[in-house]
Amino acid sequence: MTAPAKLGLIAGGGALPVSVAARCEAEGRPVFVVRLAGFADPHLARYPGIDAGMAEIGRTLSALKKAGCEAVCFAGTVNRPDFKTLKPDFKGATLLPGIVAAAAKGDDALLRKILSIFEGEGYAVLGADDILGGETLPAGALGAVVPSEAHLADLKKALHVAEKSGELDIGQGAVVCDGLVLAVEAQEGTDAMLMRVAGLPADLRGSDAARKGALGKAPKPIQDLRVDMPVIGTRTIELAAAAGLAGVGGVAGRVIVIDRPAVIAAADRLGLYVWGEGG
Amino acid sequence: MTAPAKLGLIAGGGALPVSVAARCEAEGRPVFVVRLAGFADPHLARYPGIDAGMAEIGRTLSALKKAGCEAVCFAGTVNRPDFKTLKPDFKGATLLPGIVAAAAKGDDALLRKILSIFEGEGYAVLGADDILGGETLPAGALGAVVPSEAHLADLKKALHVAEKSGELDIGQGAVVCDGLVLAVEAQEGTDAMLMRVAGLPADLRGSDAARKGALGKAPKPIQDLRVDMPVIGTRTIELAAAAGLAGVGGVAGRVIVIDRPAVIAAADRLGLYVWGEGG
Repeated sequence: MTAPAKLGLIAGGGALPVSVAARCEAEGRPVFVVRLAGFADPHLARYPGIDAGMAEIGRTLSALKKAGCEAVCFAGTVNRPDFKTLKPDFKGATLLPGIVAAAAKGDDALLRKILSIFEGEGYAVLGADDILGGETLPAGALGAVVPSEAHLADLKKALHVAEKSGELDIGQGAVVCDGLVLAVEAQEGTDAMLMRVAGLPADLRGSDAARKGALGKAPKPIQDLRVDMPVIGTRTIELAAAAGLAGVGGVAGRVIVIDRPAVIAAADRLGLYVWGEGG
Repeated sequence: MTAPAKLGLIAGGGALPVSVAARCEAEGRPVFVVRLAGFADPHLARYPGIDAGMAEIGRTLSALKKAGCEAVCFAGTVNRPDFKTLKPDFKGATLLPGIVAAAAKGDDALLRKILSIFEGEGYAVLGADDILGGETLPAGALGAVVPSEAHLADLKKALHVAEKSGELDIGQGAVVCDGLVLAVEAQEGTDAMLMRVAGLPADLRGSDAARKGALGKAPKPIQDLRVDMPVIGTRTIELAAAAGLAGVGGVAGRVIVIDRPAVIAAADRLGLYVWGEGG
């Protein structure tokens, strides 16, 4: 068996790139990390790599080539840059007009444009889930808590709304309680949406004593899953609990669970289900 | 010319019912106000009427009949009740199971169910816009500020997202800036959504110095416009300004402008456009 191709990990914020790098290390896959300045987790500093600004595309491509990478993986969150204040390098400057034009069409077009640049340079683009393998959400209950039929009805509606809002390039998540759409995620992100639900009038939502309602997470149907797959982590579970929700779910195989044992432990401790629909 | 039919105004929260009652008074139309406890503005106490809980349907119908009302108008905001803690009167108790069943299907089904009860009792159901007449948003610029083409592109996208989210019975509003959907309104309401946009990273949105982005408001396509027409008021303008937006708009004729001179004055003072699309 030959060693897996050396991976260039383009790392934004959050726990996902840390999980990807750790998995590479555990499997003996060589990894080179491009730590996006202002976003990447400091724990990634221990891997070979560079710190790079978002518009330093020429420098990033040179570093990946010099390091002998054959594939790249984009993982983690970045805020949309203010294109007016970016400091591109020479290659970045030649590419920037096309990127700005794509960005005006929405997040999805922006992502596809950036992927096409790396593919055009000969790199295979892998998804975080390609690296993390079995760490996507399995079908059925992940932890000890099994959702009731009423819980699943809310979850299915939340997933439907999340998918529809994904088709509109809005976001990846929604919260439904007793059939009512409490919140839809856009640029504020899942955590902020859950905190907002916790602030809604108590009679619209559940509580610690009587949990109800669901967070549904779904990838945008038009989005390139290799770049921006939805994620469930322990913080998702904790904030869902604080919002009184009964549980959290997604389409099986299409949501990444970061640190599965910790997610299961948090869900079991707080009394929430984690559910993979279909699969 | 005969006097207009006496109106029973079922008043929730906010400025809309106050505007409706004031317009009736100005036009010499007799009005009887059912002030929903916990929601109705205290200024409505000076009109003939009763204070009633949301589930006191029998008492409300009796009072409307005794007062000689021929038509009713629902106006203003109410939070969804916790059906478990409602205190229905006798008539309310007989109707509650059907209402709860409708509520489980979403806001729209709930509204239609409540309308059908009043229509079944022989009342004509008027919309706030039927009373307020010319106070819906006209086509084009309402104030002194005229949106640029880029502004209108954001507004059209915001209206598209608001309409699509309305089809899903989510809500009536969305904010778009530079083509990116910043926020979608659900149960938190327009004001809370605008405050959330003001808290997003500054490079995603506009500022006092360089306004950009639009709030679009659209009625849910499936919703009964007689009950829940979207509203633009001075607070909408002020919060849109605080979020850095360039302006606010809706489909002409399908959004109510409350206190038009004050809305125009606020928009002109803060440098925002108010735009009615189509018409």
